[in-house]
Amino acid sequence: MLIVRHLSIREGVRMEKDDFKVTPWEVTGDVDYDKLVSRFGTSYLTDDLISRMPGGRENMFLRRKIFYSHRDIGWLLDSYERGNPFYLYTGRGPSSGTHLGHMLPWIFTRQLQEMFDVHLYFQMTDDEKFLFKEQLTLDDTRRATLDNMLDIIAVGFDPARTRIIVDTRDISHLYNIALRVSKKVTFSTAKAVFGFKNSTNIGSIFYTAIQSAPAFLGSDIAGTNVPCLIPCGIDQDPHFRITRDVAPLLGYNKPALIHGKMLPGLSGGKMSSSGNAAIYTTDSDAEIRKKVMNAFTGGRSTVEEQRRLGADPDICPVYHHYEFLLEPSDEALGRIYSDCRSGALLCGDCKKHLLSKILPFMQKHRENREKARDRLDDFVFRGGE
Amino acid sequence: MLIVRHLSIREGVRMEKDDFKVTPWEVTGDVDYDKLVSRFGTSYLTDDLISRMPGGRENMFLRRKIFYSHRDIGWLLDSYERGNPFYLYTGRGPSSGTHLGHMLPWIFTRQLQEMFDVHLYFQMTDDEKFLFKEQLTLDDTRRATLDNMLDIIAVGFDPARTRIIVDTRDISHLYNIALRVSKKVTFSTAKAVFGFKNSTNIGSIFYTAIQSAPAFLGSDIAGTNVPCLIPCGIDQDPHFRITRDVAPLLGYNKPALIHGKMLPGLSGGKMSSSGNAAIYTTDSDAEIRKKVMNAFTGGRSTVEEQRRLGADPDICPVYHHYEFLLEPSDEALGRIYSDCRSGALLCGDCKKHLLSKILPFMQKHRENREKARDRLDDFVFRGGE
Repeated sequence: MLIVRHLSIREGVRMEKDDFKVTPWEVTGDVDYDKLVSRFGTSYLTDDLISRMPGGRENMFLRRKIFYSHRDIGWLLDSYERGNPFYLYTGRGPSSGTHLGHMLPWIFTRQLQEMFDVHLYFQMTDDEKFLFKEQLTLDDTRRATLDNMLDIIAVGFDPARTRIIVDTRDISHLYNIALRVSKKVTFSTAKAVFGFKNSTNIGSIFYTAIQSAPAFLGSDIAGTNVPCLIPCGIDQDPHFRITRDVAPLLGYNKPALIHGKMLPGLSGGKMSSSGNAAIYTTDSDAEIRKKVMNAFTGGRSTVEEQRRLGADPDICPVYHHYEFLLEPSDEALGRIYSDCRSGALLCGDCKKHLLSKILPFMQKHRENREKARDRLDDFVFRGGE
Repeated sequence: MLIVRHLSIREGVRMEKDDFKVTPWEVTGDVDYDKLVSRFGTSYLTDDLISRMPGGRENMFLRRKIFYSHRDIGWLLDSYERGNPFYLYTGRGPSSGTHLGHMLPWIFTRQLQEMFDVHLYFQMTDDEKFLFKEQLTLDDTRRATLDNMLDIIAVGFDPARTRIIVDTRDISHLYNIALRVSKKVTFSTAKAVFGFKNSTNIGSIFYTAIQSAPAFLGSDIAGTNVPCLIPCGIDQDPHFRITRDVAPLLGYNKPALIHGKMLPGLSGGKMSSSGNAAIYTTDSDAEIRKKVMNAFTGGRSTVEEQRRLGADPDICPVYHHYEFLLEPSDEALGRIYSDCRSGALLCGDCKKHLLSKILPFMQKHRENREKARDRLDDFVFRGGE
């Protein structure tokens, strides 16, 4: 049976004192990402590690520490530098449409695929969403899966090296691994890691074993241990702590992790949930325009005051949209930051400028999304690859 | 969420006061089958119900109340008499070889299939055995599954109307139903019904949802509610209480159940576990002879005493082997009983007589078992049937 570090893990799940909460199913409050590193027991992604990744220093998400935390990346790079391949594994819980916050780690994952020239398993956890969302039916999650797959494919993953695993469709490839994982995880452990109660349903309790499976699937298919790297939002770390604790008990390597921050929603205040006034991939230009122009900002009450005192980009979701995704030039980003601080840049102009970045970005994505409708078959997982 | 009758169910699982315990995974002590009916809340199978079953009164297992308890058989027969078909569902947890005690409910199930001319799903719960038996690997349960399937096929099920479902092989046909079941069952319920603890592994906790699935599979495939009858040992009733409680929440009929007693083991004393000195289908004639001749009996210490006082067939596993399986004639069985009671029949002679029944029975079974090796494909479940 698995022995977990109950205290630190339990502390990681709920942090009432800090007024924020991060679980795989709920992110509320003002997330302090530094505190998450110490509470979850992860490590900061250092410049040294980043410079060992091919093109790491040129990668915006790494350079800006949007992906900022990790587990065992050093070990993975050691192995990679000795000529051993690895594979990527990430996923999506398909419960609704895709927004920019979802796409951010997918874009980064595609970049990792390009940087390292590796295979990727992309898991659609439709079972998870069904089990954890009271109102959702399997028909709902099936529809969301098909919808979300269009966005995933539109992000530009290499069809020759990317397989999308849909849990309910591809369960025959996951179940045996999940059984082996589940035999090593007690209810006590699941309770400590996820905060489950006696009233939690038995499907939700079992589910983490399904999310572990792709981390070992590559090794099972290869017939030898193949390292796995999981890029994900740091909210998913609790699942993979279990995966990592179980791995040696089953004779596998622990998967390495690289953790991202979550894109703040446009309606502001709390900076955590990207679902809050998020821009969806199916939004029209008019809807996007409205959301951006209505966005919360770090601005002052009046133009006069802002000209005089400047505004605060650090609490501004409009600024974070530049920083996290839409302004790749550090120089341009720095200019936005200092002009905001100085009062030279007013929120209305800043929002219009953001729109000039977002609208073409989304336009291009929508085009790719339409093309993806004919490409679904290219990404089907058929086992053995 | 599912509301269970905690008290009665909990009482059903452990009955320390009565010095016997019946769960789906453990049967110990002297089982009082009448107490199980009241504690589990099942009903006795009455002569009236038996006579409504085609050939019911002629069926040895029914007539002798080896299958003695039920849930909703009256409802099932009402429906059947109105011309509605139903299907049978039973199963086997493949952890080791097959013995006579396992075969008894299979033989009865085959007779039900003949009596009602109906389809049967036979579930091999290899996942269950893997999860609940610490030392078993999935390779072990895979081997046991193949081995046990030979015995199942040898029992004579109609290949046109019987499909064997192997959980790990056929999970894609079960998983969606299991998910829907699992969403309606809390850990509290599973704990109350099965006696789980916080140290129980999360696979075992989820498993009951997999055992529920075949009870609804026939309806899903037909696209309309098809009643289901589950013949099983009464030790399996806890699983199906959950199945039945969940059924209406998912829009299905509750499956009907018909419960059997368990064939006592030959080494006697405790009358519950059929695994204790059981006769396996792969035993040689010499091994069978040895087990029978060494069997515990209800006899006296000396021949003289037995001639004078008679013996006790009611506590004798040799007698129970006649009663449960090997002496179809009530008249002949009654003679054995009274000759035992009177002292006219000595245990040695009685054992030799039993051997004259068992050896040809097992010889025939071994022949059918060999033939079954070429017939495995005839029983594969391929969905949609």
